[in-house]
Amino acid sequence: LPSPSPPLLAELEATVEHADLDPAVHVILLSGNGKGFCGGYDLVDSAEGQGRMSEEGAAPPTGSPLDPLVMSSNHDPSRTWDPMVDYAMMSRNVRAFMSLFHCGKPVVCKVHGFCVAGGTDMALCSDLLVIARDAKIGYPPARVWGSPTTSMWAHRLGPQRAKALAVHRRFTLRRGSGRMGSGDRGALARGGRRTGGDPRERIARMPLNQLMMMKLGRSTFKG
Amino acid sequence: LPSPSPPLLAELEATVEHADLDPAVHVILLSGNGKGFCGGYDLVDSAEGQGRMSEEGAAPPTGSPLDPLVMSSNHDPSRTWDPMVDYAMMSRNVRAFMSLFHCGKPVVCKVHGFCVAGGTDMALCSDLLVIARDAKIGYPPARVWGSPTTSMWAHRLGPQRAKALAVHRRFTLRRGSGRMGSGDRGALARGGRRTGGDPRERIARMPLNQLMMMKLGRSTFKG
Repeated sequence: LPSPSPPLLAELEATVEHADLDPAVHVILLSGNGKGFCGGYDLVDSAEGQGRMSEEGAAPPTGSPLDPLVMSSNHDPSRTWDPMVDYAMMSRNVRAFMSLFHCGKPVVCKVHGFCVAGGTDMALCSDLLVIARDAKIGYPPARVWGSPTTSMWAHRLGPQRAKALAVHRRFTLRRGSGRMGSGDRGALARGGRRTGGDPRERIARMPLNQLMMMKLGRSTFKG
Repeated sequence: LPSPSPPLLAELEATVEHADLDPAVHVILLSGNGKGFCGGYDLVDSAEGQGRMSEEGAAPPTGSPLDPLVMSSNHDPSRTWDPMVDYAMMSRNVRAFMSLFHCGKPVVCKVHGFCVAGGTDMALCSDLLVIARDAKIGYPPARVWGSPTTSMWAHRLGPQRAKALAVHRRFTLRRGSGRMGSGDRGALARGGRRTGGDPRERIARMPLNQLMMMKLGRSTFKG
């Protein structure tokens, strides 16, 4: 799958809605058709104007939180960051991912190769996972660029294990078991590996606001 | 406001989203511009083909739960009613109403004249209510045609009072106080009048499936 840009997300939401309404469709299948599932947000595109809309979609009003200029100036280190501008943009992405979760029919997702960062959201919001033996699943931005955007790690792992993963365990690449239907007991359910060092040191190295966000995002989760 | 038909609901959702993104908008105001706020679903239109889509909107697939023929044949008394067909249609209406509740900016709703049945959903999903002294608010279909579609009566009144209203109190017309800002302590917060008779008789007259739906809809509410 390409990176979750606004046009891709609008297409995802519209396709899921159409399949959900089509009486001939009993199951929705999601997979990447390249060398991996999805590599996450395109950070170059993000820096250079992520807010571009699909041609069909209605353009957001000038100066909206989806305006590329607004997004980039909100990340200007010399200015104050407005969390509500970020939330207005990212919560719309999460709403698009969650169309997989909220639609009326089961969504089966096949994960192969890399499934990383923003790419994990689409896998996590699916109902059933089939994970290839060579799959590499992880969330490298966590602890540096804020909390994972969906609460679906907690939904998969339970809040307690998701909390450990968010604050001190290795939030990175795990192999799937490769067996059909085993996804939910596989990579996304094992909760990361212990790291070699002292977890207290790992926690102490995190910026305080990131740490508080990681805890908030897991503690307020309602299953 | 006209009856909540699919084109009106699509327009409501799109207008709320646009206002939510527009940085010049601080508050969203909702009111009827006729002799009342909203009279609810148009039952004639409903019987004759409620599923018509707005001209701009993508047409749902043939045979979908939004197809007028599917809806009307699902209400053919000689055939078995499929609750999931009804849910697929009505949950999309609720999603449109709830765009008022979920958008990032406060929604102030003015209620005057009649605000009845499906029309109450738009008022209930708003954040703040201003209710005219002459307003008449109620949900006459309840107890005959199923539970109110949103859970917002419970949100306004609390689950316990909403439950009493749903199963034995008079679920009908109440006056607002007419004072600015008093809406939340006014008509929608008083929870209906006691009826003259024995509440046990009133409950005993309700069909069992309606009674169970009324209780389920209130008991599973999470505030």
